Amino acid sequence: MIKVIIAGYRGKMGSTAVSMVQDDPELELVAVLDPFATEKEAYGVPVFNDKEGLVGIDAQVWVDFTTPKVVYENTKFALENGFAPVVGTTGFTDQQIKDLESLSVDKKIGGLIAPNFAIGAILMMEFAAKASKYFPDVEIIELHHDNKMDAPSGTAIKTAELIKENRDFKKQGAKGEKESIPGARGAEYDGFRIHSVRLPGLVAHQEVLFGAPGEGLKIRHDSYDRASFMTGVNLGIKKVVDLDHLVYGLEHLL
Amino acid sequence: MIKVIIAGYRGKMGSTAVSMVQDDPELELVAVLDPFATEKEAYGVPVFNDKEGLVGIDAQVWVDFTTPKVVYENTKFALENGFAPVVGTTGFTDQQIKDLESLSVDKKIGGLIAPNFAIGAILMMEFAAKASKYFPDVEIIELHHDNKMDAPSGTAIKTAELIKENRDFKKQGAKGEKESIPGARGAEYDGFRIHSVRLPGLVAHQEVLFGAPGEGLKIRHDSYDRASFMTGVNLGIKKVVDLDHLVYGLEHLL
Amino acid sequence: MIKVIIAGYRGKMGSTAVSMVQDDPELELVAVLDPFATEKEAYGVPVFNDKEGLVGIDAQVWVDFTTPKVVYENTKFALENGFAPVVGTTGFTDQQIKDLESLSVDKKIGGLIAPNFAIGAILMMEFAAKASKYFPDVEIIELHHDNKMDAPSGTAIKTAELIKENRDFKKQGAKGEKESIPGARGAEYDGFRIHSVRLPGLVAHQEVLFGAPGEGLKIRHDSYDRASFMTGVNLGIKKVVDLDHLVYGLEHLL
Amino acid sequence: MIKVIIAGYRGKMGSTAVSMVQDDPELELVAVLDPFATEKEAYGVPVFNDKEGLVGIDAQVWVDFTTPKVVYENTKFALENGFAPVVGTTGFTDQQIKDLESLSVDKKIGGLIAPNFAIGAILMMEFAAKASKYFPDVEIIELHHDNKMDAPSGTAIKTAELIKENRDFKKQGAKGEKESIPGARGAEYDGFRIHSVRLPGLVAHQEVLFGAPGEGLKIRHDSYDRASFMTGVNLGIKKVVDLDHLVYGLEHLL
Repeated sequence: MIKVIIAGYRGKMGSTAVSMVQDDPELELVAVLDPFATEKEAYGVPVFNDKEGLVGIDAQVWVDFTTPKVVYENTKFALENGFAPVVGTTGFTDQQIKDLESLSVDKKIGGLIAPNFAIGAILMMEFAAKASKYFPDVEIIELHHDNKMDAPSGTAIKTAELIKENRDFKKQGAKGEKESIPGARGAEYDGFRIHSVRLPGLVAHQEVLFGAPGEGLKIRHDSYDRASFMTGVNLGIKKVVDLDHLVYGLEHLL
Repeated sequence: MIKVIIAGYRGKMGSTAVSMVQDDPELELVAVLDPFATEKEAYGVPVFNDKEGLVGIDAQVWVDFTTPKVVYENTKFALENGFAPVVGTTGFTDQQIKDLESLSVDKKIGGLIAPNFAIGAILMMEFAAKASKYFPDVEIIELHHDNKMDAPSGTAIKTAELIKENRDFKKQGAKGEKESIPGARGAEYDGFRIHSVRLPGLVAHQEVLFGAPGEGLKIRHDSYDRASFMTGVNLGIKKVVDLDHLVYGLEHLL
Repeated sequence: MIKVIIAGYRGKMGSTAVSMVQDDPELELVAVLDPFATEKEAYGVPVFNDKEGLVGIDAQVWVDFTTPKVVYENTKFALENGFAPVVGTTGFTDQQIKDLESLSVDKKIGGLIAPNFAIGAILMMEFAAKASKYFPDVEIIELHHDNKMDAPSGTAIKTAELIKENRDFKKQGAKGEKESIPGARGAEYDGFRIHSVRLPGLVAHQEVLFGAPGEGLKIRHDSYDRASFMTGVNLGIKKVVDLDHLVYGLEHLL
Repeated sequence: MIKVIIAGYRGKMGSTAVSMVQDDPELELVAVLDPFATEKEAYGVPVFNDKEGLVGIDAQVWVDFTTPKVVYENTKFALENGFAPVVGTTGFTDQQIKDLESLSVDKKIGGLIAPNFAIGAILMMEFAAKASKYFPDVEIIELHHDNKMDAPSGTAIKTAELIKENRDFKKQGAKGEKESIPGARGAEYDGFRIHSVRLPGLVAHQEVLFGAPGEGLKIRHDSYDRASFMTGVNLGIKKVVDLDHLVYGLEHLL
């Protein structure tokens, strides 16, 4: 049984994390933290308004879905008090992450700071990066709801960067190919193309297509719901207890 | 049993048509025509070099995969001699098609001139056109081998035209959406988007995607091989014998 | 502007219908009905507890998402009072539907009773039925969340029935094909196969795959959310005002 | 420039390999072997009928697409004469492979024996195995032409075995789920399901689907043509020259 504290338990992500912990027989919720909570007890465990009250409590992991303002102090506090942090809150500077890594090494405590807990998306990117070593011909199609303002999506651009790092450069498409309507061939990035589809009903989806003589390989990720992040948080909790330093990015635990 | 003449039996399409006719127990090959053939017999039937030799032969259907130069005269000859033409050769002027339609009405003989015999592609276009009446939010993704010079493909443009005729105009996408790399959102046609993917290994494929709150509808056609046209030629042969006039476009027989 | 009454406005479907009507500038909500409502006004319109209070109100359409117990009386009342009913509630006997059809003809009032308002699913079935006329080789893959108890799904079976009505019977697959693990080839229905996938994260999806020499055609419907039914309810409201009798099944309005 | 001998150059795979080598500016064909060839020269290089004639020739790699009868002797000969073997011929006993591995270690020569050169299929299996560690809910859909006699396919079974080795056992599907038509839920293997689709027009395709709360991950491989194997043969040639022992299975070079 891994004993878990959840900081920011009243927010969307925090409360979803509470449910996830309580549904897993290998995890035990022992305390929750929120500076503005008025209740004394929630989900059967004590509520704290101030992190100092948690010094000495019997717990191994500190899950943090709080705010950019407090997350650095929270994570530092967790490491100093022997709780391995699993942090989904954003807002760290590069220097802060370096400091926390150093601190974790000194304290020999594991930890995870992850800007993205969607294991499926991380696997898609990792698989795409690997496939591009053998199949340099690739295109990305990302599909999102039609309220999205930017194109291509952040995930598509991150995938493209990873592909660029892994494949030999190739300018794809027929020499002298022509667009009879501009934009048909999509956005060009490092010689390959990215296409952004926007339709009502869609949530967040991406396909990475590889082609070679006589074959094709496609990797598709569909994200329907924020519940998907909890698979990653759960994995993080179970992995950090066996680590002796803090890592940045869930991909380092896969 | 429908008795069939095949004109242009030594070309790629013509010889594929011979196999298709011989494999179908409801069809019987009775003669083949090619001005440059030197053999007297082929596939167990007599070979003709000159169409005049076919006057009076016992046949109902004239399949034509010849050349733009002779196809108009061939089709006229077929109608005049009581053979219902099924023509895949291109090269007619609009006036010639009108003349042949008139002639067919006079003679009360069925016929079919079809620029495209791929039933699957025709159904995809028909379904897309119908769906766009109820789902005005649509995007087209067409995928071809990477030697293709033009984008979007002819089929994509024809599909887009049919959608335009059937849906109420809608300028899709978020108001003020931005491309961080130009072309990401694809080619704009009548307010919707077309994306052209080019990869080795692909042949000719198209997806039409519709989206509405809470749902999506996708129609995909894959064309791997010219064999696919024979399903349409077979259908044409069986339909023209029951028609009393010539039609232009296989869609009129579906 | 079409004036609309919504019966059962406090239920899940009813309240979603209220939002849909209020979001459409061509529709106007004029009254809502629920026997147990305690408020006098909701969404800016009067609330009624008893349908009798609605006699003489200025409205063209009666949307009904109530209960099996009252829906027959409600629909009869609507027809008798000049409101074209659009009914998503289930629980009619065959005789009741016949009686309501007769009544609508007498009154020359349009109406719609629909067990399924998902236009996308209805189009998928219609397209599949049509394609099966030309492509007798077909398989269905339906994919649902892993709490679903029955396999194949009701939609898959309805699709299969429509295909059966439209294609010539064909026993598909290689003669003498063998399953090394039983069930690999799926459920057999009229000579073709249906496959049921169950995974967490999925909602309700179906693919109908057609194959012929050299080509493939796929029709896929994805249903993520009950919001999808509203496209059909909206269409129903706009169509019934031009009808002079009641129809059963949204497909008759497509 | 890597100098290459091709044994079995007149077979389907051998002659495809000749084209591949000649199209790659980093490779040079230096000799070809076939016991029954009557020509003295082919593709601009000398033809040998007996492998003994190749002793001392300046080459680094021996590509072998011959027959089960001679492949063991060929591979042994290659290792003994300093040519790194890349072998696609089947028919080795386990003991023979062990002997060749030992010999390669003694000689410090690289080599590859691969039952499957389709990199795309190998990557699909590797990615599926890895994803199953994090997503224990999985189903496999494999799709082949309708002349295939066995179901599930060999690739599907191999994929299933790899998944079994990597995930914790899980009996998937709803407790008490019912098939109204037997086989709907597919073949059961280690608690998950495999579905085999058979349609004309298809070649060899496979999808591995993973599901978790709120998300899905799909890996699909399409194999259209034997040309696809050449990407793997090419990779093998370039990798074996840097190895100091023989490996069995292309996956060890990815």
